Amino acid sequence: MSGWLEALGAALPGRVLTTPADLLAHARDEGTALTSQPGAVVMAQCEADVLATLEVARAHHVPVTPWGAGTSLEGAALPIPGGVSLDLSGMNTVRDPDAVSLSVTVGPGTRRVALNRRLRPHGLWFPVDPGADASLGGMAATNASGTTTLRYGGMRENVAAMRVALMDGRVLALGTAARKSSSGYALGGLFIGSEGTLGVLTALTLRLHPLPSATASMQLAFSDVASAVEASVTFAGLGLGLQRLEFVDGQTIAAVNRHRGRGDPEVPTLWAEVVGRDQADVAAQLALMEEVTRGGGAVVVGQALTPEAATELWAARHGVYDALRAAWPGHATRIADVCVPRSTLAETVARAQVLLAEHDLTAPLVGHIGDGNLHLLLHAPLEDAAAWARIDTLVHALTLHALAVGGTCSGEHGIGLRKRPYLRAEHGEALDVMRDLKTLFDPLNLLNPGKVTGNPANDAAPWSLHDPS
Amino acid sequence: MSGWLEALGAALPGRVLTTPADLLAHARDEGTALTSQPGAVVMAQCEADVLATLEVARAHHVPVTPWGAGTSLEGAALPIPGGVSLDLSGMNTVRDPDAVSLSVTVGPGTRRVALNRRLRPHGLWFPVDPGADASLGGMAATNASGTTTLRYGGMRENVAAMRVALMDGRVLALGTAARKSSSGYALGGLFIGSEGTLGVLTALTLRLHPLPSATASMQLAFSDVASAVEASVTFAGLGLGLQRLEFVDGQTIAAVNRHRGRGDPEVPTLWAEVVGRDQADVAAQLALMEEVTRGGGAVVVGQALTPEAATELWAARHGVYDALRAAWPGHATRIADVCVPRSTLAETVARAQVLLAEHDLTAPLVGHIGDGNLHLLLHAPLEDAAAWARIDTLVHALTLHALAVGGTCSGEHGIGLRKRPYLRAEHGEALDVMRDLKTLFDPLNLLNPGKVTGNPANDAAPWSLHDPS
Repeated sequence: MSGWLEALGAALPGRVLTTPADLLAHARDEGTALTSQPGAVVMAQCEADVLATLEVARAHHVPVTPWGAGTSLEGAALPIPGGVSLDLSGMNTVRDPDAVSLSVTVGPGTRRVALNRRLRPHGLWFPVDPGADASLGGMAATNASGTTTLRYGGMRENVAAMRVALMDGRVLALGTAARKSSSGYALGGLFIGSEGTLGVLTALTLRLHPLPSATASMQLAFSDVASAVEASVTFAGLGLGLQRLEFVDGQTIAAVNRHRGRGDPEVPTLWAEVVGRDQADVAAQLALMEEVTRGGGAVVVGQALTPEAATELWAARHGVYDALRAAWPGHATRIADVCVPRSTLAETVARAQVLLAEHDLTAPLVGHIGDGNLHLLLHAPLEDAAAWARIDTLVHALTLHALAVGGTCSGEHGIGLRKRPYLRAEHGEALDVMRDLKTLFDPLNLLNPGKVTGNPANDAAPWSLHDPS
Repeated sequence: MSGWLEALGAALPGRVLTTPADLLAHARDEGTALTSQPGAVVMAQCEADVLATLEVARAHHVPVTPWGAGTSLEGAALPIPGGVSLDLSGMNTVRDPDAVSLSVTVGPGTRRVALNRRLRPHGLWFPVDPGADASLGGMAATNASGTTTLRYGGMRENVAAMRVALMDGRVLALGTAARKSSSGYALGGLFIGSEGTLGVLTALTLRLHPLPSATASMQLAFSDVASAVEASVTFAGLGLGLQRLEFVDGQTIAAVNRHRGRGDPEVPTLWAEVVGRDQADVAAQLALMEEVTRGGGAVVVGQALTPEAATELWAARHGVYDALRAAWPGHATRIADVCVPRSTLAETVARAQVLLAEHDLTAPLVGHIGDGNLHLLLHAPLEDAAAWARIDTLVHALTLHALAVGGTCSGEHGIGLRKRPYLRAEHGEALDVMRDLKTLFDPLNLLNPGKVTGNPANDAAPWSLHDPS
């Protein structure tokens, strides 16, 4: 192999993997059918390993892509072919949580589920929940969010401080464990969502939250999408401790009914979860939600006041993916992700349904409705090129719709490889400033090059979003 | 006058003020005894006026400092002597609020109180409350926060989108009215807190919140500071709708008692405000707070379940400044502003009290305790140079303490002129990156030059923080 690989091996003895199996394990994420094999994998155990990797990359002009848990859905963590996959999963130390400051410092490779298992005995949790058992570094790098973002915000609101290794070998310590600051430019926020293109996160100080004293959930069926959206707006003004508010369309309820032998009304449905001080408090919150939606013809499908009942109640919501797999065994999936102003949610759902019909596709539609974030779980046999072409066309049209109504091309999955063509339309001249920042932090274009801000030469390229799968 | 003033007049007919009274009105803010008189004031009415001002500044190398309401406490809005004060108070249009998306777009000169008056009939409010009736542009430029930040966050969390005029004449549209995004670098967050040094905010889209259905308040007296801090931690885990949590020390309660003829216990005191769905709900929340603090020897001084009672209950907290003015008529004030991890709050309060004694000073100590943000309201006759020197020394020592315990030199007032010496200690090499960004956005160093990131030559200068007042 070339000199860079030898230099890497010499700088990081025992940390560099090059067997076909190791390379293949870092060649694919959970969302793209794309594969992109690295030339080497570095199993970093500490910040010094990250710095040593960057030093070799700098000297030999080798591209480096950080890798956390590989759960990216848009290709953010896919290595540059032949480059370095910088695997941070070994940097998973969780320091003692501070129950007074409500913070904890973790390595970027720490997984979300393991972190919450560690926090639980302290009466604490880290609520950002993208679904996958992602790494905290990867979640920060894509500004991940999810079902609880309505109440707690996403990663940008929940990373208090970080250490970032820059391409030039400096390590910045950004932010503090204080809960706010008006001191200097907010550099930390720039790295959240930058997908490893500006620097490598080597430690994160996270904002924690006390475990709720009591929670309760409710499943509500609505006659139409607009009524469900209206209910979500009404709920926001009731003084509730709303923690989750999830939407699923009628066709998807039908699919889940078939899969699980349930008989839920096959109409637009909300799941709401509230937190409060005790059982009576959360029960009163459910009662109030029922009361204010009754006039609009909403039907309470079920309520849950115990953890066991909640597991059962949420099973239908969580069962969407399983129902999809059962209905269409062997299909590969692609999850569309757009976020729109809430006032345009109903028309966006309607547009998605029209697009599905036009393109002869069926796909579960779910949404973090309180945030205006919608997902379509598109699927087809991996080898059905015609179906994937229709899926590409649909996702493209839905993304353009989101931008046209004042939304964003990515609510929570990031840009990675496939959303790059939309940055000019969404950000205008700000994309040029983003590229200036990329050049400032990474003048040799070695940090996950081509991701997020992409290649200026391709801005005006015809749309070409089909995975070569 | 020189050519730039003529060019400014020609570019902005009728908008340029140069009378002594106009210049004087833009020469002083609310927090510094410093005065700094501009050479001209531009009364901008629209974005085109801002761009015309920047064009003249660029051509003639004249520094420009944006001006909102002049309520800055650290000199952020003080013009460069002889430069342009770009007054944005005329850009105060409030567009129709969107009650579904919970957003509204405003001009940067819009005042906070006027905005909330406008929002109230829609059942909405913008909760960020720095105390002063500041402009929204100024609040964004300093990342202002305040009493409600505990629940709603500060400006960074509540500006969804913005328009920013750059020094080179481009106007960036950053962010969307969607509630979240993982698309591209978070440039907007960079301008929040940049104090007009990177660009001029010409419009802001703010996140709104429904007016609470019910609120209630409680005043609690504690035997010591540690117990008050402990109570604030306990409250966070109870599932309450805590909206405000304010701390005042015992000596300050004594001053307020004297001023208002009250007999409140002269011990560390908390004011808590909760929101909920109805009167019974908020009453139950007060009862729970009373129950959990009773064991620690806390005493309920008063409760308020009506708006009138709340006004009366909070009068003592809001009366701190009046009590100070009554006790020391004619004194000028200087408000110290530090923010520390909550686990170090009690020791930071103790340190402040020791410093006051050591420097023979008396000052009310108040804090947004849920955020770890403390203020000392220092005061002395304007002409008492010896007292101001002691105040400088004390603020310096308190700021170093905040940094030593892992906090920040500014919780919510910004950097302006006087906090610049602490940026190197707080941010380390990140300060160099901040300066790189300053150069990228403002290569001629004309946008509020010297503020925030300061002058590299002064980094190692001896501490010299005394106002020439």
